[in-house]
Amino acid sequence: MSRRTSDSQKLFSAAAGGDRGSLARLLSLIESGGDEAREIGRLSFPLTGGGYSVGITGAPGAGKSTLTSAIIGNLRGGSTSGAPNVAVLAIDPSSPFTGGAILGDRVRMQDHATDEGVFIRSMATRGHLGGLSLATSEAMRLLDAMKYQWILVETVGVGQVEVEIAGAADCTIVVVNPGWGDAVQANKAGLLEIADVFVINKADRAGVTETRRDLEQMLELSELDANAWRPPIVATIATSAEGVDELWSHVLRHRAFIESNGDLNTRRTGRLRKELNTIIESKLEQRARAICSGPRWKSLEDQVLSHNLDPWNAADQMLERILEGPLQGPGE
Amino acid sequence: MSRRTSDSQKLFSAAAGGDRGSLARLLSLIESGGDEAREIGRLSFPLTGGGYSVGITGAPGAGKSTLTSAIIGNLRGGSTSGAPNVAVLAIDPSSPFTGGAILGDRVRMQDHATDEGVFIRSMATRGHLGGLSLATSEAMRLLDAMKYQWILVETVGVGQVEVEIAGAADCTIVVVNPGWGDAVQANKAGLLEIADVFVINKADRAGVTETRRDLEQMLELSELDANAWRPPIVATIATSAEGVDELWSHVLRHRAFIESNGDLNTRRTGRLRKELNTIIESKLEQRARAICSGPRWKSLEDQVLSHNLDPWNAADQMLERILEGPLQGPGE
Repeated sequence: MSRRTSDSQKLFSAAAGGDRGSLARLLSLIESGGDEAREIGRLSFPLTGGGYSVGITGAPGAGKSTLTSAIIGNLRGGSTSGAPNVAVLAIDPSSPFTGGAILGDRVRMQDHATDEGVFIRSMATRGHLGGLSLATSEAMRLLDAMKYQWILVETVGVGQVEVEIAGAADCTIVVVNPGWGDAVQANKAGLLEIADVFVINKADRAGVTETRRDLEQMLELSELDANAWRPPIVATIATSAEGVDELWSHVLRHRAFIESNGDLNTRRTGRLRKELNTIIESKLEQRARAICSGPRWKSLEDQVLSHNLDPWNAADQMLERILEGPLQGPGE
Repeated sequence: MSRRTSDSQKLFSAAAGGDRGSLARLLSLIESGGDEAREIGRLSFPLTGGGYSVGITGAPGAGKSTLTSAIIGNLRGGSTSGAPNVAVLAIDPSSPFTGGAILGDRVRMQDHATDEGVFIRSMATRGHLGGLSLATSEAMRLLDAMKYQWILVETVGVGQVEVEIAGAADCTIVVVNPGWGDAVQANKAGLLEIADVFVINKADRAGVTETRRDLEQMLELSELDANAWRPPIVATIATSAEGVDELWSHVLRHRAFIESNGDLNTRRTGRLRKELNTIIESKLEQRARAICSGPRWKSLEDQVLSHNLDPWNAADQMLERILEGPLQGPGE
């Protein structure tokens, strides 16, 4: 382990010196979890706080990747000197039925692949879902430590995990399209709760007015506090970058708002608290896997399989072992 | 707890005596988890083994509910005396963007609501995902103990959890539609791996031949063992029950096949083993929640929030506490 740890440290130093290959390798280590991920987190943690994260979420096909690409174009402008560094994490919890479109979208974003000030990375995991949100937090932290001023976190779909991940940014953009009752869907999905800015993308299509009205109505119904941020609704055509300037001005306005009223701090604190919880859960799960092996386990399992012991009782008997032995050690 | 336990026992006896209201309440208790669910599992466990479970999965809109309804019609026939009892669990992990269609579909299935030999129930949870698969196993066990000969488990979408749940049945039917490259999607989704029978539903639409050919090709590529079950491909029009007889004959043929070669036993054993694992994980998570409270937790949390301690170290320090105190007790 000490050898690997020292590898992480070398990669970390190289990445901090601007080596993109090392940064990419660090992100792969984070993605696969394990001791290296932890070491990278430890190295990143003290260096964070300068970056600002923006989550971008919405139904598949809403145009999130194109919008993200347009936002990058906007942030990087014509000249690259003095422009802020931008990192993009495209999060894909490997929902099987969205697999098709992803590569194509990512390719589109590669407009910016040659820009040294832009770093784009997909993250996925087929493992435990808590693993993806932990890896995302850790990746965001690393990118923050590497002095990316803007960290865009785009999620591929609108499953529970993706909504959670996108909602865990400093600012969350929810993308809907005109028509198809998207506004209502957004409400159901809990997107209304996490939205700081609404985007009606593909605004060259019919139905923008109705969608805007639906969103407005839902905002009315949610009875926002007088002092609360009221999510603006921006129409965009991401393919031609139309409306992206306006969108970004709202993101900046929102940032100023939550920086001045203390909400940004509250959000970040809440996020860290939740992460700590998830880490503890995942460590206990690791322990569970270690427990579920060895001869004692085999014998209890046999009793369950022969229907002489119910699984809940077997679990209790097995869990008594958690009070014995070291936390990281094998079960038997 | 002893009072509640005795309630579960009363409900269990009443349900075993044929009271559907009591059965519904038991399923609600299972859905909400907790001690009652456990007690119900303990009561069910020795009585199980007679029922046979069939998972039905596929993309939203593939016609799974209509097909399920047609299968019920087929199993119950014209006469109800002597026909097998059928239970349906419709599993909905509350994927936010599928919310709309569900009620409508369920209503359609209520064709059979007045049939005493048919029991239909939706199950959902917004809690931890392991919770849904545990609750589903427990519900299947209860229905088995209540002497339902066929237990149909229909999942609403094709997320990871849903595929897992549908794949954990004795026989799994994967439903696709003609056209839209569904066959390819099925492959991506890992549906090919779990399919025992393929259904091309809505076979009155164009593209049946192509979809069948795609599926055949994928089966070729998967290089099945000579002794292995080769999933048949059946075309159905669920709305008019066309093809459902043939579909069911394949389910019966598959059942005879895995009963005779020992696969059924292997499947059930594997499922029970996995469930035991999930129970242990969920109990450890419960323990994690208990740990994450109290003054010691607060102080570590404060150190993390002030960036004086990284979350992984904090988690380790907190987890030392797992070696102290009773397993079910509060953390501090």
